[in-house]
Amino acid sequence: MSKRRSIRKYDTAVKIDRTEMEEIINEAVKAPSSVNMQPWRFVIVDSEAGKQSLEPIVKFNKLQNDTSSAMIAIFGDLESFDYAEKIYGSAVELNLMPKEVKEKQLEMLSPMFEQLPLEAKKEMAVIDSALVAMNLMLVARAYGYDTNPIGGFDKEKIAETLDIDEKRYYPVMILSIGKADEEGYPSYRLPASDITFWR
Amino acid sequence: MSKRRSIRKYDTAVKIDRTEMEEIINEAVKAPSSVNMQPWRFVIVDSEAGKQSLEPIVKFNKLQNDTSSAMIAIFGDLESFDYAEKIYGSAVELNLMPKEVKEKQLEMLSPMFEQLPLEAKKEMAVIDSALVAMNLMLVARAYGYDTNPIGGFDKEKIAETLDIDEKRYYPVMILSIGKADEEGYPSYRLPASDITFWR
Repeated sequence: MSKRRSIRKYDTAVKIDRTEMEEIINEAVKAPSSVNMQPWRFVIVDSEAGKQSLEPIVKFNKLQNDTSSAMIAIFGDLESFDYAEKIYGSAVELNLMPKEVKEKQLEMLSPMFEQLPLEAKKEMAVIDSALVAMNLMLVARAYGYDTNPIGGFDKEKIAETLDIDEKRYYPVMILSIGKADEEGYPSYRLPASDITFWR
Repeated sequence: MSKRRSIRKYDTAVKIDRTEMEEIINEAVKAPSSVNMQPWRFVIVDSEAGKQSLEPIVKFNKLQNDTSSAMIAIFGDLESFDYAEKIYGSAVELNLMPKEVKEKQLEMLSPMFEQLPLEAKKEMAVIDSALVAMNLMLVARAYGYDTNPIGGFDKEKIAETLDIDEKRYYPVMILSIGKADEEGYPSYRLPASDITFWR
């Protein structure tokens, strides 16, 4: 955590294979999420054609797009409740949750998700996706890679460009990932005394 | 990361003192943020009176409020640019950034922040606050404590209850923190294959 830097330039000779990338994702998703609905979705752009399609989307972040092993676009799924049965059902199968608890929970959550205003759904998806993004940056380092979190990209067009449902998937962040080819810059942080209130 | 569980019940005999809490915050804020503006703010509720005022705010999360060492309410500062001069100026003083870079950056960022619609400011603050929240949960464990991220609280009333400017500070999450007095539950995660698209 303390040695993480935003890395923009990567060693283009190093390619993270899809098996290793899935391992990294499987570690990162240990993040918590609201009622464990895990709304995070990852579009992993690691092909030449994919990178080319991203070029107009990433704006000032061409270097990362050109040199990274992959650009990971993180979206919040606004219909994450579609996975509720699988998530809670698997927990029961794995003896992590009694069947009665699952049934009670889903009975309570189903109308809640149905009635949730779109803005609240988005916010929930954004928060949970950011939690997983932080984990992903840290897991990447444990695998010997580095990242750069990118917020400045074309949020209006990214879903369409990546050919996923733009009504369903709400863009949160792009993370470039790869083997660092620069040291990055340390940066200043405001001390706790400037940013905390005690009550 | 892999052993973190959401902990709701804490050992009430263990109180994290404010010096240690500041250390924890100072580690967690190593998270990245959009143009390093660090919009995260922490209202740390560790007094009896503070906890009592939170009781109607935390809804179903009374146990955490009653037993935790502190409830950390995380807000996004919608006027984070007020700290730009301090952040970028300190970076220059510490030789982390050339003076010319600072001046160029602030010249570019100042009108950008001024023109940013409120919704975009909120989203930026929410994303960055969630990044720091994930770090905070992990740092807490390194200090021997545990946490529970809480999204289900009264977002309309929390700023007023905690006596901070509700126009300026946007509520993102409450984290309870303390010495665990239960083991917590492991939970199921969707595998990478369910939640990734390759491009």
